[in-house]
Amino acid sequence: MPAPLRIGLAGLGTVGVGVIKIVQQHAEMIAMRAGRPITITAVSARDATRDRGVDLSGLAWEQYPVALARRDDVDVFVEVMGGHEGAAHDATVAALAAGKDVVTANKALLAHSGHTLAEQAEAAGRTIRFEAAVAGGIPIIKSLTEALAGNKVRRVMGVMNGTCNYILTRMEDAGLPYEMVFEEARALGYLEADPNLDVGGIDAAHKLSLLSSIAFGTRVAFDGVEMEGIGAISIDDIRRAGDMGYRIKLLGVAQMTGRGLEQRMTPCLVPCDSPLGQLAGGTNMVVVEGDSVGQIVLRGAGAGQGPTASAVMGDVIDLARGIRTPVFGIPADRLESAVPARSAAPAAWYLRMRLLDRPGALAKIATKLGDAGISINRMRQYSHADGDAPVLIVTHKATRDDIQVALDSFRQTGVLVGDPVALRIEEV
Amino acid sequence: MPAPLRIGLAGLGTVGVGVIKIVQQHAEMIAMRAGRPITITAVSARDATRDRGVDLSGLAWEQYPVALARRDDVDVFVEVMGGHEGAAHDATVAALAAGKDVVTANKALLAHSGHTLAEQAEAAGRTIRFEAAVAGGIPIIKSLTEALAGNKVRRVMGVMNGTCNYILTRMEDAGLPYEMVFEEARALGYLEADPNLDVGGIDAAHKLSLLSSIAFGTRVAFDGVEMEGIGAISIDDIRRAGDMGYRIKLLGVAQMTGRGLEQRMTPCLVPCDSPLGQLAGGTNMVVVEGDSVGQIVLRGAGAGQGPTASAVMGDVIDLARGIRTPVFGIPADRLESAVPARSAAPAAWYLRMRLLDRPGALAKIATKLGDAGISINRMRQYSHADGDAPVLIVTHKATRDDIQVALDSFRQTGVLVGDPVALRIEEV
Repeated sequence: MPAPLRIGLAGLGTVGVGVIKIVQQHAEMIAMRAGRPITITAVSARDATRDRGVDLSGLAWEQYPVALARRDDVDVFVEVMGGHEGAAHDATVAALAAGKDVVTANKALLAHSGHTLAEQAEAAGRTIRFEAAVAGGIPIIKSLTEALAGNKVRRVMGVMNGTCNYILTRMEDAGLPYEMVFEEARALGYLEADPNLDVGGIDAAHKLSLLSSIAFGTRVAFDGVEMEGIGAISIDDIRRAGDMGYRIKLLGVAQMTGRGLEQRMTPCLVPCDSPLGQLAGGTNMVVVEGDSVGQIVLRGAGAGQGPTASAVMGDVIDLARGIRTPVFGIPADRLESAVPARSAAPAAWYLRMRLLDRPGALAKIATKLGDAGISINRMRQYSHADGDAPVLIVTHKATRDDIQVALDSFRQTGVLVGDPVALRIEEV
Repeated sequence: MPAPLRIGLAGLGTVGVGVIKIVQQHAEMIAMRAGRPITITAVSARDATRDRGVDLSGLAWEQYPVALARRDDVDVFVEVMGGHEGAAHDATVAALAAGKDVVTANKALLAHSGHTLAEQAEAAGRTIRFEAAVAGGIPIIKSLTEALAGNKVRRVMGVMNGTCNYILTRMEDAGLPYEMVFEEARALGYLEADPNLDVGGIDAAHKLSLLSSIAFGTRVAFDGVEMEGIGAISIDDIRRAGDMGYRIKLLGVAQMTGRGLEQRMTPCLVPCDSPLGQLAGGTNMVVVEGDSVGQIVLRGAGAGQGPTASAVMGDVIDLARGIRTPVFGIPADRLESAVPARSAAPAAWYLRMRLLDRPGALAKIATKLGDAGISINRMRQYSHADGDAPVLIVTHKATRDDIQVALDSFRQTGVLVGDPVALRIEEV
């Protein structure tokens, strides 16, 4: 049996403990699959005294991740600390500089510094693997980079933040308003310390930017992701979308258009009977459309100890087997800088607004839509007890820019109450 | 740029032509991803004169696949001819003997000879890759072998014959009997020359036996697959299952039990609102349950030119990158001979039968069930115009053997008309 592959594990939170459990429980099975034993030689974490429910005896303890990354008895630096600056970044740089491969679950780090780190890794003949950074245990990075490498990718889509999907599902099932379910989710510990990472779409956008890079051979461009959170979604939106056969999802979409790379992480309507529409609760789903393979759908747990540790171990086992592909599928110096295109692909739109209950109000709105070149597919005015009339419009295909022009012009009519909501209807 | 990887392509049917299209259309993209160009140097097929709609100029033509497999200008032998004996087998053996890697879409060949071929390949330092052999474009082989390698697999399930799923979906949607939809499928060209390969479950069982081997580290044991086709499923079964919230699928299930390896390819009831229950038409789905990752679902086209060629090219690109894992995930000489266990795992069962319309008939059946130690969850007798009473029973958990004892004993009652139908209700 060849020499073991030695892991230095930075971070002993939920995921780090999960990695230790797998390595300890399945040592023999993993050695057989990897062709060599895999061991953990050293760890680092803030608190050396806390009981984490796993046996840490025999493992060297480093106070600082950078020191861990540089140890001679570490072949692969596994970073499951999180945070896109500071220790996680510095330790990753140190590991690569010391000639180690890196396995990371850190989407924020890669969304911000992935290109630079990939260049550093590849210049040193090393790689960074990050299956655990996107959609937890779902093997989407490997599928895109390897299994589907014969495809020109047309579009990548995904529900990649379980907390948002939980909130939207719970609103629908229980008929509760956003604010109440948000508080529930917070009480259940589902939200990040900064909840905007979840409900603002930032965490999911980090993930999307990594998928885009692989799918389209472009440099990671997190700044190019159009982002909109789920905070403006009302229970009315969910119900009315449902009446028309749609569900609302925080959906990431990346596609290469004639105008450039479009990356969106926004609430969208998808058909109830599509795989994305059927996805309830905290589960994740990624959809890849390739020119040969057609549509491939992958579904599974997007977070949690077991699923995330499973993804980390898949990467580690690959490295033990000698599988070392470029970080983003092609060499970093061949990745192109994509031109960001903001919602260039036209779509049907769901528009909800309240109008003053006044003769001709609806006609004014319809006229403005026509002026913007947008035709109406369906329009409904709901019954109302108070003075305002809830109006729902589904348009034929229009670009985001056209819709914005129309929304702006609605304000000139003097019949609009409050802000209209505009949600894209994604064809899936 | 390193030297090209040179393909020898055996078989110019739908899939072979698909491979040529991808290689020709995406040469530059593939070279970038694979780190080297991929070319086709030589081909073989029965008919050298037929126009296949692709440019074959510049490709050497071999009359016999074995000769193709031995050519010095071939690095990887790609076998997309089909058939588990004769040319496909001999050419694969010849390719391995000549030191080539093999990529194949041939599930029948591997289900029958996979273990021997894997031993030959690994003794020669080569490998056989077969992503295209199972569920078309769905990256299930790679996911099981690599991405999920840190998991002890609990169960693998799948709908892996699109034709059967098309037939069952069409029966439900159109309310047509099996025989009529079968003839439709034949007219549409969906059926193999020997339709029993599809509707008898043989093709899907071939695929399941390959997944089992990887999942459980056991030698391919196609003979150990319990097989039952969809020919006995009536439109009544589909409707009554639907009334109870289930759909009927030809479902493959492999799991390691205390009594051995259970492999089944049989019609089962699955909940309508589960991913498997929602799978309509010719699409395939594979579900993997791992001890860390939980449930992972992969869905996509299980057949067709593009999807199958996509899978072939994923394997070829891996070989070009130098990725060469053991054929079934661990070295062939480490694979264990599993003890076959016939439906050892207990389940709830759906039983349908017709009884003579006679006082006490139902009681006799219920008594026999009780005698077999099987308790009843639900029982319905449907209204009937003729002399026989349709009866539906859903049991609590019981093994296949217990159910068989009960079915046999029903015949002794003298009230049974015709053969009862027994379908497992799989928890998914």
